[in-house]
Amino acid sequence: MRRIGDAAIEILADLGLRGLTHRAVDAAAGLPPGSTSNLARSRAALLELALARLTELEDEHFGELLTRPLPADRQEAMIELLAVSTCKMIGPDRRRSIARYELALEATRRPELRAVYDDIGRRYREPTVAMFAAAGTSDPARQGRQLVAFTEGLLFDAVVGAGGTPTLDDLRAAFTEYLSAVFRDASPT
Amino acid sequence: MRRIGDAAIEILADLGLRGLTHRAVDAAAGLPPGSTSNLARSRAALLELALARLTELEDEHFGELLTRPLPADRQEAMIELLAVSTCKMIGPDRRRSIARYELALEATRRPELRAVYDDIGRRYREPTVAMFAAAGTSDPARQGRQLVAFTEGLLFDAVVGAGGTPTLDDLRAAFTEYLSAVFRDASPT
Repeated sequence: MRRIGDAAIEILADLGLRGLTHRAVDAAAGLPPGSTSNLARSRAALLELALARLTELEDEHFGELLTRPLPADRQEAMIELLAVSTCKMIGPDRRRSIARYELALEATRRPELRAVYDDIGRRYREPTVAMFAAAGTSDPARQGRQLVAFTEGLLFDAVVGAGGTPTLDDLRAAFTEYLSAVFRDASPT
Repeated sequence: MRRIGDAAIEILADLGLRGLTHRAVDAAAGLPPGSTSNLARSRAALLELALARLTELEDEHFGELLTRPLPADRQEAMIELLAVSTCKMIGPDRRRSIARYELALEATRRPELRAVYDDIGRRYREPTVAMFAAAGTSDPARQGRQLVAFTEGLLFDAVVGAGGTPTLDDLRAAFTEYLSAVFRDASPT
């Protein structure tokens, strides 16, 4: 399962959705023909399997971070967490990010995949909103959503767009600037 | 040419890169078989044609805005321009945005397409950087790039991601917050 998911992610990154077939996954995973079909009969099931494996991989990195309570200086801690994670997704995990974008685009055409993708999105958005609410910022729901969007934009621009590759310091500066505006009128409750 | 480009954009939005073939474009454009091949022989040429047409369509909207000098209150004018444009790309132009993302992903695998895509990106980034420089913000090159990335992120999250659809007021609030941080220490030169 893990091996098939990993192979599907590699194919999505290298060849896009066009290259993702059950047979190609068998070959890339070094498994006998039919193995992928046994596990995920339809194309929809194969896409969900790839997304599930991507989520598992992201959880290894983010899961603990997201549930750990932030230290007293929330703003500093968030800046560092966001800058370091984004740097990782741009650099060593670049191909995983491309695979996720492929699945996100396909989700615009497949409601079942959409539902799975949105559930995953919520797992990042909700802790961010909760953190802003705890800090007493002016509009936590909007600000939490927009911080996730800002992060997504920096990542997209670096991985897929024309923005070039920001350094860790560029990312620190970006999040410092953005969070300073959000936290300016915050009054912790 | 325009008709073929428009049909290619529709196909990219509805079916993704998998669905984009010369034959499918002929059919969608209501042209005799072979018309698209005559105009764009290879797949690479067809992708570039679609991107060129997308750029032409965006220019109809943005071209004038980007070259027009901003009024005295730069910050207010930018907020309105960004909020209204993003709202348009999320709403009426949503399918064009999806087609552009398809091409951006494919550009990670095709250096020629990458070059075209990056040229287009520069046309948005450079005026933004110039505007921040004129306003005397602290790091115009980084801030210009990051404003484009922020816009891209809000757009991506609304069109393809899990963020839901922000209202025009949400977008105004987002850009007001972000630009207030960038302009805070600005000293016009």
